[in-house]
Amino acid sequence: MSDSRSDPLAAGMIATVLRDGERDQVAVEEPLEIRVDGVPLTVTMRTPGHDEELALGFLHGEGLIGEARSAGPTEDFAANTIEVEGPLARDPGERRFYTTSSCGVCGKGALEEVAVHAPAVGPGPEVDRALLAALPDHLRQPTFERTGGLHATGLFTAGGELVIVREDVGRHNAMDKVIGRALLDGLLPLAGSILCVSGRLSFELVQKAAVAGAPILVGVGAPSSLAIGLAADRAMTLGGFARRGRINIYTGADRVRG
Amino acid sequence: MSDSRSDPLAAGMIATVLRDGERDQVAVEEPLEIRVDGVPLTVTMRTPGHDEELALGFLHGEGLIGEARSAGPTEDFAANTIEVEGPLARDPGERRFYTTSSCGVCGKGALEEVAVHAPAVGPGPEVDRALLAALPDHLRQPTFERTGGLHATGLFTAGGELVIVREDVGRHNAMDKVIGRALLDGLLPLAGSILCVSGRLSFELVQKAAVAGAPILVGVGAPSSLAIGLAADRAMTLGGFARRGRINIYTGADRVRG
Repeated sequence: MSDSRSDPLAAGMIATVLRDGERDQVAVEEPLEIRVDGVPLTVTMRTPGHDEELALGFLHGEGLIGEARSAGPTEDFAANTIEVEGPLARDPGERRFYTTSSCGVCGKGALEEVAVHAPAVGPGPEVDRALLAALPDHLRQPTFERTGGLHATGLFTAGGELVIVREDVGRHNAMDKVIGRALLDGLLPLAGSILCVSGRLSFELVQKAAVAGAPILVGVGAPSSLAIGLAADRAMTLGGFARRGRINIYTGADRVRG
Repeated sequence: MSDSRSDPLAAGMIATVLRDGERDQVAVEEPLEIRVDGVPLTVTMRTPGHDEELALGFLHGEGLIGEARSAGPTEDFAANTIEVEGPLARDPGERRFYTTSSCGVCGKGALEEVAVHAPAVGPGPEVDRALLAALPDHLRQPTFERTGGLHATGLFTAGGELVIVREDVGRHNAMDKVIGRALLDGLLPLAGSILCVSGRLSFELVQKAAVAGAPILVGVGAPSSLAIGLAADRAMTLGGFARRGRINIYTGADRVRG
């Protein structure tokens, strides 16, 4: 018997399909409904596996929970649903990003919204530029190798050791799973750690990292303007285009040596 | 005076930032609130520009509108908001993906949901495999070249001519903008056309293409299991890994020659 955690085909993360008349493997994508105390909160398209971590990490990133809590299959055992114990820290239906209609929606409002839920980021570790640039090499996982279809997020120590890695068809889900696992393991806030993602750096990813208290976030892809704005606002170090031994540092260069 | 439509810096699609002490350009990401008859419906993180197309394309893909309608700045001129004329075809708050709690959330439910809003796809054009494989070469746009941070979607004729191309930090937004433009130009359903995306093929992207009636969707990246399932269900042709003159065909191979 193989361990389903280490065999992505057995764990339902990979599906076999016919392609040009031959068998091929692709990443599985299925909806997951997150319920809190029996009430459906949201549906996300995700790769099955680590659903408990995904749900807790998602709720944490939204500022809806601050601590780990019980999560698992629903009482009616409905497929692709996960039940999380309440209560939530705030009404999830509460309007986000702005407060009055005359203020409008703007990047500044989005930054302020995150600031409410994100702890102040401490000075954090100082790390070598070369170490940051090399982190994506440790993200490649068996599922990606077999499908080319998954994003990955990794949590690393300041010394570059991989602590947690998770994969998903959605890059935000991969981040949620890592943060959910860290929450369950009592690792939050991530004051001395580094987060690394396999793709581009959007506002949403920086938001999740900020709320988890991570001082350093790097990615293989490009950052957006608002991702840089949020990282600067939260005094985080943000690095992009981490490829072939190089990395661009956009904010918080004081933590980067060399 | 430069034309803001052709100059992404002037159009607010690109921002200049300091990176490692030098000036660099990144893709702009800002929230956009979509209102219908004054009522806020959703907020999406997007690259500014073509907001009207984005709003209409989004509403079309969700099965909320079937025809073009008026869209533009809100009366209070709130920043980053767009107002669309109602009414909608259904209640947007209506539950999606499943009907009873005992049925649970599943991929099959997601396919059925899309089927309600998607027209039957006709036989559509027959095209050469080499033509499909080469389409991504036409997607590279000035904004991507300068930032590396944008997804693109292109609408092509069956002969491989580019009709519409749009870029965005969100791949779903780039698709929405193209479909919104096509809706405004009276091109829907896209019975004789090909859609091409610069990234991976998720369920969501196939959904939007299906509801727009596109018979062929190809992408540079990998498809997910549910993307393939939906394309098969809607009798669409789905091609992935379109790179270096090659492409994998997952469904609807009868439309592909060679």
